[in-house]
Amino acid sequence: MSISKNQFKIITSLSQKKYRQKHKLFVAEGIKVVQELLNSSFELDLLFCTKDIFDNIPQEKVIKITESELKKVSNLKTPNKVLGLFKIPTNEVYNEKGLILALDAINDPGNLGTIIRLCDWFGIEELMCSKDTVDCFNQKVVQSSMGSLKRVAIHYVDLEIYLKKVKLPKFIADMDGENIYKTELPKEAVLIMGNEANGVSEEIKKLVSNIISIPRFGETKETESLNVATATAVLLSEFKRSVISFK
Amino acid sequence: MSISKNQFKIITSLSQKKYRQKHKLFVAEGIKVVQELLNSSFELDLLFCTKDIFDNIPQEKVIKITESELKKVSNLKTPNKVLGLFKIPTNEVYNEKGLILALDAINDPGNLGTIIRLCDWFGIEELMCSKDTVDCFNQKVVQSSMGSLKRVAIHYVDLEIYLKKVKLPKFIADMDGENIYKTELPKEAVLIMGNEANGVSEEIKKLVSNIISIPRFGETKETESLNVATATAVLLSEFKRSVISFK
Repeated sequence: MSISKNQFKIITSLSQKKYRQKHKLFVAEGIKVVQELLNSSFELDLLFCTKDIFDNIPQEKVIKITESELKKVSNLKTPNKVLGLFKIPTNEVYNEKGLILALDAINDPGNLGTIIRLCDWFGIEELMCSKDTVDCFNQKVVQSSMGSLKRVAIHYVDLEIYLKKVKLPKFIADMDGENIYKTELPKEAVLIMGNEANGVSEEIKKLVSNIISIPRFGETKETESLNVATATAVLLSEFKRSVISFK
Repeated sequence: MSISKNQFKIITSLSQKKYRQKHKLFVAEGIKVVQELLNSSFELDLLFCTKDIFDNIPQEKVIKITESELKKVSNLKTPNKVLGLFKIPTNEVYNEKGLILALDAINDPGNLGTIIRLCDWFGIEELMCSKDTVDCFNQKVVQSSMGSLKRVAIHYVDLEIYLKKVKLPKFIADMDGENIYKTELPKEAVLIMGNEANGVSEEIKKLVSNIISIPRFGETKETESLNVATATAVLLSEFKRSVISFK
């Protein structure tokens, strides 16, 4: 059995968000990432592979293809034996406990992938994204999050409405806020990170009174602000250290 | 005056390290990055631009080129009006004070660029790189460090010899070390970060007894280790917070 014209068309269409939403499917590639997703609650639709790699997959879901077919359909520079189509879940229910990260209009898929890995590392279970944040089923995000996608529940919401409803204390990361090292951070909170170029939007700022900053230690003010992913790393570390480290 | 064949040949050759070393020149592109380097101790060799942008540049160093010439010689997807050739400095002298970051075989130019920006933010003045760390004058590093290159002194050294000589306490970041949040960190130290795939090499590990880790808060051990740039962000933050924050 080989890849059909129609399958080829669907897979390549999934590089666009509107077709991912239409088909409710996303693409993951490479043995490692596909393996992680197979061992998760994500539901496999179809698996295209150049040889038998995984056990326990129902035969009707596996389609053998040639290396050159894989190369044609792959988005990777060096395709790695397998391409999986998985169903996009509907994460409609979310919890309101612990530390929650909220993203306001993050644009770069690499940044979102890195941030999902950070959530996984720091035990953040819920990631709330504004509707204009890059889609987490964008293939670049899927590949760069390295399987963390299955351990972090990601929700696309109207961030204003969400923040108005949520009862936890809320913190915005911004350039001119309180020194993070001198701020007492609660165990349960929503931390809000903003867009790469513009930071958190004015509408969201009106809803939140706590603004926190990572102080700049370099002497010159010319220094570019920290990249949103590295800033998120420092801030998640600060929230978690205050909870667990000095037990 | 237009770009000569020979200049074209030299500029394109500078994408390779051996030609950067031969000509002692590197390329920076775009108004913002070139402006930062012009306002620094880096010495301009030649400036190619599609229109007059910068004042106070000696006329003999400026070469007007067309948009299509710039497009041909540029490494960027969307070239931005100017390409500068700068002289590679010889950073032979380095200080032994404060917090020093050392990199053991970092491969990815994007990671090195991010780490240079982090050094700038956290006021790290000296960055020591093993000889097999990616070249900081690689154009991807130059572009992604966003001008921080001029504020951080970067030295390529035999890391083993350097670490044997340096008298400051030394810390290796690794998976199985002491919990960073429970470790008392000195004001002056050398922090050593290792290769993306393999961590710090065995030779270096033999020289250093302090191993520190960022604890994993997520419950599963499947979680990928943190990316080296995000781990560096957290660790630099920890070193600096212990020095300055609670004055």
